[in-house]
Amino acid sequence: MKLVSFRVATPIGTFMRVGAIHGQQVVDLNMAYVRWLADQQEAQPHRLANAQVPPTMLEFIEGGDSTLAAARRAKDYVTTRSPSVKGPFGETIVYATADVQFVAPLPNPPSLRDFIAFEDHIAATSKKRGQPIPPEWYKAPVYYKGNHRTIIGPDETLSWPLETTKLDYELELACIIGRKGKDISERQAEDYIAGYTVMNDFSARDVQFQEMACRLGPAKGKDFATALGPCLVTRDEIADLGALTMIARVNGEEWSRGRFGTIHWSFPQMIAHVSRGETIYPGDVFGSGTVGGGCGLELDRYLKPDDVVELEIQPIGVLKTRVVTATQGGEDAGQYG
Amino acid sequence: MKLVSFRVATPIGTFMRVGAIHGQQVVDLNMAYVRWLADQQEAQPHRLANAQVPPTMLEFIEGGDSTLAAARRAKDYVTTRSPSVKGPFGETIVYATADVQFVAPLPNPPSLRDFIAFEDHIAATSKKRGQPIPPEWYKAPVYYKGNHRTIIGPDETLSWPLETTKLDYELELACIIGRKGKDISERQAEDYIAGYTVMNDFSARDVQFQEMACRLGPAKGKDFATALGPCLVTRDEIADLGALTMIARVNGEEWSRGRFGTIHWSFPQMIAHVSRGETIYPGDVFGSGTVGGGCGLELDRYLKPDDVVELEIQPIGVLKTRVVTATQGGEDAGQYG
Repeated sequence: MKLVSFRVATPIGTFMRVGAIHGQQVVDLNMAYVRWLADQQEAQPHRLANAQVPPTMLEFIEGGDSTLAAARRAKDYVTTRSPSVKGPFGETIVYATADVQFVAPLPNPPSLRDFIAFEDHIAATSKKRGQPIPPEWYKAPVYYKGNHRTIIGPDETLSWPLETTKLDYELELACIIGRKGKDISERQAEDYIAGYTVMNDFSARDVQFQEMACRLGPAKGKDFATALGPCLVTRDEIADLGALTMIARVNGEEWSRGRFGTIHWSFPQMIAHVSRGETIYPGDVFGSGTVGGGCGLELDRYLKPDDVVELEIQPIGVLKTRVVTATQGGEDAGQYG
Repeated sequence: MKLVSFRVATPIGTFMRVGAIHGQQVVDLNMAYVRWLADQQEAQPHRLANAQVPPTMLEFIEGGDSTLAAARRAKDYVTTRSPSVKGPFGETIVYATADVQFVAPLPNPPSLRDFIAFEDHIAATSKKRGQPIPPEWYKAPVYYKGNHRTIIGPDETLSWPLETTKLDYELELACIIGRKGKDISERQAEDYIAGYTVMNDFSARDVQFQEMACRLGPAKGKDFATALGPCLVTRDEIADLGALTMIARVNGEEWSRGRFGTIHWSFPQMIAHVSRGETIYPGDVFGSGTVGGGCGLELDRYLKPDDVVELEIQPIGVLKTRVVTATQGGEDAGQYG
């Protein structure tokens, strides 16, 4: 399934919902499961559905395989019925994609780790400093922890951060952890992946390099926002991760193109490494790091106000962000935290 | 107040509670407030108390000044009554300290940042590498993000991590954020501090230096555990932070002694820096970084199995951790996450 998170505005507040893309439609999975349960004559379909197919993504992911299976069955059930299928009290189950306000598929991950797993990228950035790739890079997949409270979603704006003069994108694939675990072997690690999404690790390079000179971080140079989206594609939907093409466009012009298969450290290797003596949790986000050539730093080109950055990795889709100046009043990153 | 978190085992599971130290006793603040409300003839004292004085620390901190004021009033109310004061249904309000199983005052912070704010410490560690202090260190308080899911508390054990041969402690003071905010000025920043606790940023130096050679992190070298405790002292209880003496002992022998006043970057400066274009949240933990001389790395001495590390900063108290080998089966860090 292609899972999405979207907002539904109501007279008693705005609610987040989990949906699945179905052609030009979005199926509200919790409400679809309510429909299925009601048709089985369950006395409390809403209560049971909220436990089995939670309406918010983190809790949905925490439900694991059992929740995914129930959601799939409910989606199949409603999509083979009338397109105007409704909940037992007339609730909306199916939306037209064009009418839906999407947010990041997982707007509130419990943590965010970002790796440097592509050799071409670390080779290029090391070379810019006149240095070889550190030999330690080949010993284990290194990472830092990003800010899990400043996630933005598809079609959201990014307010110009920190008066930077070197605002950059980073073209990455992210995996979302689906199961709690510790000391996970590389061989078993794939079972711990719920699915994949596109990630834009926005970076203020001038700020980043200043703090990294102190051998820490990065922190402020990256923490203002990370974009995830447009959907979370479940693991079963991608037969060959290595074959995925990764593309970045700025205002429609292609700046970067790479292949995920050029990665040196795999997601299972990252999971095995992180989980050594340390528990990972459903919803944890692992970013792959930038694909070779997948950022302006490698091209000596940077973003400017009003630029539209599109990161495309099919079959996940296009993650689009418009950069605005602070006075244009983009929405605050992390508003769903 | 000196706030603590503690566990109460019951036939329907183990519950976390927020308490306040009162001499040799611990007052359950939520239950004290229930008592006060019941004596005001409130019809639903438990329901109101759970909202106004939540029984778990993160929610308690999120309640802000209003929750603190209600908790103080309730504590004063019950401690001026009979020592055997009970809740309306005979619930326990006051425990003897010796009978209580304490955990970290905030066992599940939403995030953990750790700074390098003491000049003596960065001077010493830079010198070990044969380098001067990076000039960037004087421009802004640098930090990395630790693992907020592997918190251990007072008197807990630390399982020997990652087959390290250089296990170290770090003697730090931490402040706990009490209010949500963004773009906070240094002058206003103190209002955003709920209180202080002692922090031991355990470090596997061999692992840490390997990953830092790749200019990221630290991550695995620190993420296995961070100790916080024994209590969270509210801001009003410490008149002069600079006068605090920080002491580390291993098996009773003093290894480190420093004064918090030697810090170069203050907590308000850290808060102003982090909150630039970025929201901070109640419960966020900011570690000061190691006081000069406050770790084994500076002394060329490391921990070994069965060592007992005590970090003391009065009036907060002593944060004690016993290091055990994995086969001795210490409890998992982050078990409350």
